[in-house]
Amino acid sequence: MSASQGPDYDRLFAKGTPAATPRFTGFPKYNFVGGHNDPTRIPVAALAEAAAAAITREGAQLALYNMGQGPLGHTGMRDLVADKLKRHRGVEITRDDVLITSGSLQGLDLVNDLLLEPGDTVLFEELSYGGAISRVKKRGVTVVPVALDQDGMRMDALADALAALKAKGVTPKYIYTIPTIQNPTGSILPLDRRHRMLELAREYGVPIFEDECYADLIWAGMSTTPPAIYALDPAQVIHIGSFSKTLAPALRAAYAVAPWPVLSRLVSLKTDGGTGSVEQMLVAEYFGKHFDSHVNALTGVLNEKLATMVEAVEREFGAAAELFVPKGGIFLWLRLPPEVDVTKLVQPAAKRGIQFNPGPEWAVDPASAKSQLRLCFALPSKEEIKAGVAEFARVCFEETGIPKQSGNVANRPG
Amino acid sequence: MSASQGPDYDRLFAKGTPAATPRFTGFPKYNFVGGHNDPTRIPVAALAEAAAAAITREGAQLALYNMGQGPLGHTGMRDLVADKLKRHRGVEITRDDVLITSGSLQGLDLVNDLLLEPGDTVLFEELSYGGAISRVKKRGVTVVPVALDQDGMRMDALADALAALKAKGVTPKYIYTIPTIQNPTGSILPLDRRHRMLELAREYGVPIFEDECYADLIWAGMSTTPPAIYALDPAQVIHIGSFSKTLAPALRAAYAVAPWPVLSRLVSLKTDGGTGSVEQMLVAEYFGKHFDSHVNALTGVLNEKLATMVEAVEREFGAAAELFVPKGGIFLWLRLPPEVDVTKLVQPAAKRGIQFNPGPEWAVDPASAKSQLRLCFALPSKEEIKAGVAEFARVCFEETGIPKQSGNVANRPG
Repeated sequence: MSASQGPDYDRLFAKGTPAATPRFTGFPKYNFVGGHNDPTRIPVAALAEAAAAAITREGAQLALYNMGQGPLGHTGMRDLVADKLKRHRGVEITRDDVLITSGSLQGLDLVNDLLLEPGDTVLFEELSYGGAISRVKKRGVTVVPVALDQDGMRMDALADALAALKAKGVTPKYIYTIPTIQNPTGSILPLDRRHRMLELAREYGVPIFEDECYADLIWAGMSTTPPAIYALDPAQVIHIGSFSKTLAPALRAAYAVAPWPVLSRLVSLKTDGGTGSVEQMLVAEYFGKHFDSHVNALTGVLNEKLATMVEAVEREFGAAAELFVPKGGIFLWLRLPPEVDVTKLVQPAAKRGIQFNPGPEWAVDPASAKSQLRLCFALPSKEEIKAGVAEFARVCFEETGIPKQSGNVANRPG
Repeated sequence: MSASQGPDYDRLFAKGTPAATPRFTGFPKYNFVGGHNDPTRIPVAALAEAAAAAITREGAQLALYNMGQGPLGHTGMRDLVADKLKRHRGVEITRDDVLITSGSLQGLDLVNDLLLEPGDTVLFEELSYGGAISRVKKRGVTVVPVALDQDGMRMDALADALAALKAKGVTPKYIYTIPTIQNPTGSILPLDRRHRMLELAREYGVPIFEDECYADLIWAGMSTTPPAIYALDPAQVIHIGSFSKTLAPALRAAYAVAPWPVLSRLVSLKTDGGTGSVEQMLVAEYFGKHFDSHVNALTGVLNEKLATMVEAVEREFGAAAELFVPKGGIFLWLRLPPEVDVTKLVQPAAKRGIQFNPGPEWAVDPASAKSQLRLCFALPSKEEIKAGVAEFARVCFEETGIPKQSGNVANRPG
């Protein structure tokens, strides 16, 4: 007997198996989603040179898992992290306090593996990174939203939430925060709030899970922000960060920093045979020499693209869009009038080659962000930003009657 | 208030959190464990050149997740896999049937995520890869051992196991097999058994999970082995393989091939932001030109090291060791007399700088392999192999009185 139809896989799949991923058919024309970077800002020649130099010097050690340098990762890469965090984030650590991870998504997974069980509770900013929200909810964990304002998480709201949970006998497993370029609102948490968050965390015995994925991309310069929360009380904080956003997301080069009782168990849970060493060698080699200059130049370009996007949104949407202009990063958050349900724009926009992040996916309570959305601006060119936002405004008008006017011209049914 | 003692993490950890990993203190002097390769066989100059060439050509696309080539992975890397499997494993596929994974460990995790729930049952060869056994058991899944002989899994034993499970109303979720260089016994499953395994799999509606991690490292040459089981009935088989063993384990470059209803869901479960693209570019570039010549040369070196190890074990252990001389790969499995409990040798050996894989970790029923062990020979030099095996025989004699003689000399209490 030869080839068969195979077993009845549908019957064999575990409960809760996600839907099949459709065949990839390329990016949309106007790609306003995801943590992509600007292809014109990849330092191709310098990376080629750095890769060749690092492999020539250290390549023989690739024969050993983790290059024989242990499960925390490549020593040069960990030195890079320690140096960067010291110079820009006020953090005093050595390479022995750093675990290299395959992207900060793996950092999220490892911390969740360590701390979360179904039925647990965590605290999130009411708007937060969609991938972090979905990961936690998938585990059967309750996510309690904490209100944000233009400066990030509100400490009165955090105090209230912790007190309310305590009254119910619940100790949350962590407070997840993106304090420095909040995702999606782009704010920077002021120093006094960082101290207050730590006070509350200590009072309630709750770790802070600090995600500084975008903290190096600051319009005013990396070192103008308050120190990382980790820097203010290392024992209280699990800190993660990444080079995906400052160098390239196709490189999986991120890190976790935490007290050793935590870090040593994240290592135990990281059963992947190590994070790819060539990427670590490459990041260590290139950013070991060029981190500040690269990031400063990239930030300048990103800030210009943001300006282009803000102008385009203001021109095309006018008063219909309330903008949360970010202090750094790669995305713009905006709110449309409450009669707009952005989830209903997804398909019509896709048909016109536009992809955006609907607000409900970035909200602990999806319904609360029904009229909000995120537009990423690092990947598209300025021309694509202008044309894509204009096209998106047309789609929005056709579907909802909003915006009533783009530029100086009243929109009319087509 | 400043830095604190932190929260009571022990109370916050999820149930079943593994023990802390101790600080890494370097490899032992005689390292006979793990999938390390021979550092002298890493083609450092050619890899440096390949990395530079690939980055120069494609580097700008690193700005996009998965280089904009979709979640299956780098197209060049997937072409490499399809070409290799066609030329050496009898598999007819295209790049669209291949998912690149961050090591074959991720392949194991994804397939287990897709198919396994606590209480499920799977079938394994009675001796198998320790990391595969532990992963499944950790999920609360029952592992049923199937007897092996010198040609791999015994089909009479498989038929009996499937019938016995059916009588209990149990449909196993898969038959996990390492047919080509079985880990740890180094056998190659003959073609007639491959066909028979498929017949049984079809009869009972059970997928075959084929792990061909070592299938390229064959003393007699890559193309002398029977085709992959996947090649004989693609709908019935989930196939994984790796370049970690043929190039370098610090590179995380492996793959899964499966029917689309399965593969498309493995993609959905792979929420890691993609496997590192630089490593994929590098493997595609270097192995796209040099796969056969590299593997043939490496295999020659490994076979010589095996000969050195076999000689050393025979010289030092004499009749006390029964050897399973492998047909390829990087490890030698051996059985000591039943009065030897190898788990009691671990600490004394470690004190003398020797690390080996105790048989119980490579057995579905640990007690069944109490006197067996695995020695890996790719990493150590021939001198280290000779000296390390001699030292290990001394440790074994001191702890157990076995072997009574090493070389022509009777062992005496020291």
